[in-house]
Amino acid sequence: MFAISPSARLRPSPFFDATVEAGVAAFTVYNRTLLPTGYGDPDAEYWRLLKGVAMWDVAAERQIELYGPDAGRLAQILAPRDLDKCVVGQGKYVALCNHAGTLINDPIVLKLAEDRYWFSIADSSILFWARAIAVERALDVEVFEADVSPLAVQGPKAEDVVASIFGDWVRELKYFWFKPSEIEGIPVAVARSGWSKQGGFEIYLMDRTKGTELWNIVAEAGKPFDIGPGNPNQNERIESGLLSYGGDTDDTTNPFEVGLGRYVDLDVPDYVIGVEALRQIKEEGPKRHQLGCILEGDEPTDPPSVWFDMHRPDGRRIGDLTNCVWSRRLEKNIGFALVETAAQPGDAVVVKKDGKDVPGKLVELPFI
Amino acid sequence: MFAISPSARLRPSPFFDATVEAGVAAFTVYNRTLLPTGYGDPDAEYWRLLKGVAMWDVAAERQIELYGPDAGRLAQILAPRDLDKCVVGQGKYVALCNHAGTLINDPIVLKLAEDRYWFSIADSSILFWARAIAVERALDVEVFEADVSPLAVQGPKAEDVVASIFGDWVRELKYFWFKPSEIEGIPVAVARSGWSKQGGFEIYLMDRTKGTELWNIVAEAGKPFDIGPGNPNQNERIESGLLSYGGDTDDTTNPFEVGLGRYVDLDVPDYVIGVEALRQIKEEGPKRHQLGCILEGDEPTDPPSVWFDMHRPDGRRIGDLTNCVWSRRLEKNIGFALVETAAQPGDAVVVKKDGKDVPGKLVELPFI
Repeated sequence: MFAISPSARLRPSPFFDATVEAGVAAFTVYNRTLLPTGYGDPDAEYWRLLKGVAMWDVAAERQIELYGPDAGRLAQILAPRDLDKCVVGQGKYVALCNHAGTLINDPIVLKLAEDRYWFSIADSSILFWARAIAVERALDVEVFEADVSPLAVQGPKAEDVVASIFGDWVRELKYFWFKPSEIEGIPVAVARSGWSKQGGFEIYLMDRTKGTELWNIVAEAGKPFDIGPGNPNQNERIESGLLSYGGDTDDTTNPFEVGLGRYVDLDVPDYVIGVEALRQIKEEGPKRHQLGCILEGDEPTDPPSVWFDMHRPDGRRIGDLTNCVWSRRLEKNIGFALVETAAQPGDAVVVKKDGKDVPGKLVELPFI
Repeated sequence: MFAISPSARLRPSPFFDATVEAGVAAFTVYNRTLLPTGYGDPDAEYWRLLKGVAMWDVAAERQIELYGPDAGRLAQILAPRDLDKCVVGQGKYVALCNHAGTLINDPIVLKLAEDRYWFSIADSSILFWARAIAVERALDVEVFEADVSPLAVQGPKAEDVVASIFGDWVRELKYFWFKPSEIEGIPVAVARSGWSKQGGFEIYLMDRTKGTELWNIVAEAGKPFDIGPGNPNQNERIESGLLSYGGDTDDTTNPFEVGLGRYVDLDVPDYVIGVEALRQIKEEGPKRHQLGCILEGDEPTDPPSVWFDMHRPDGRRIGDLTNCVWSRRLEKNIGFALVETAAQPGDAVVVKKDGKDVPGKLVELPFI
């Protein structure tokens, strides 16, 4: 592990001070924002998410706002998913693509009003992308980054914590739906969402100056449930088959290759960016697909920092192991394989990892 | 200082192993790539750059390649600078802007051939931006990130080191000009450039597998000159008045506000993105400008992680201190002020820094 240098180029989260107080030990950079990645006790952080409730500073999931008469039109131009029936208060997971049908982000699109949308983005610059398209197509819409910062509450006890703060109405929220609210004068939106499969909410903080206050409100409400700090959990998200844009994708990945085909609507109008390419990819069939890979061996290995070549036992290269973690539930090293479509669950593979040949087996996703 | 977590989402540099061997201690993330920020001895690293020669892994300065019949046209559409007379082998510093005349990057544009350009970029996603424009304007050009990684050699002795490797022709290279070459079979381009005012070169590595070999060739050639590792030096670049895009700019900064007006050509054709807005900004006069600020006090302060509010002594806010470092040559804390144009060199100011009011004085740039 190396240190990360402070810099005005890397934007702090409104929850930064609170996470330091809570003992944050490590960060990554995501959308040029510091994103906590650990509080020093990975075992406790993992099981807290699985069995209890954790609170995460995910302010690095920035909101790209489309605002104005053409906001809905721009949202649909950008998203190869039918937004026609999307209503105010609803969110949709979108496989955002460029003109070639290549994945460029996988945001949640939240409809705040007929003329107002947020793209709650993964780690790539959709601000520049959306602005370029808006102006080149002469649309009447403002595109900017809204200073709105999600605080995630995740785990089986998350609903009880969030209901104890905002009321039982949160229990009725459908997945990816959201509702504006406020707590102790702090304006927020509460959404049922989050980058885990353990259930939970994201509380979108709309006043940057209130980060510590909101953090403390959640921490206090969570005390009876043994809430503690955490962050998007690489181990859990791989067990659960959740994609990391940029971590499990490269500059040629299309949605069909990484299990996002079910979020793509091919019958949207032709003006939607990427849809013509996506129709063709669908017709021809994608060249790669994403599977799980279980490696041999019972010892946890180091976390990933690069992709590893994946081969058949006869030495022929079939693709990559894009991420690899220790699964505490399977007690195996597991990872995502991005491999040629001929490679199928059950196949034996060899991963070239840190100079060694590690045998493994392809499996269906999710692992658990 | 906190740790940075390894992740397949953050791309390693081809020089990563070599920098670890050289004792790298800290990183930042720049264009989703790990960029070394220190080797544990900031004083030695600073004076090595000032008095001798340092080698820097700046692979994070990625190359966005435009290739095809319309490459030149796209380059000109993107750049509010006259590229008409730019010849093969020449590079130009460009204040890249969006349609509103807001700075979105400040790359060196290198012309490799009539149909081939590299934008050697600062920390923002010009890949998405350029691709959006290329397709929306139906241009016949490919836009992709070329896997080409600069290794900078900087300092007053840099020319001797680079000449001892490539020959005396490098001494004739004009600033920002470059020439393809090779060394021990490794394909490179040698450019006179680099993010310091101490002089030097950037050796663009074109074969990612040869990072350690190239590093070692430079280290070996530099031995007689006491070369050592370093990185873009926040202290030197602020003393020298060099801009950090994203560190000293925000989402409304235009080139005239931060001293880049001399790189803007307003007589380029109207199809150039941003030029109409830039003409208007120029006519109306920018609202802010960048000056230096010297703070009172003789003790080095912590490195910057946020902008600090800047006020008149009477309490009225006039702008921000965007970065602040200890100047070993001036023995003062200095920084960049981005302030209303009424604020002028010589004016007294107050900086709200870490909860304290720190008096300071505005000065002309560069500091040295």
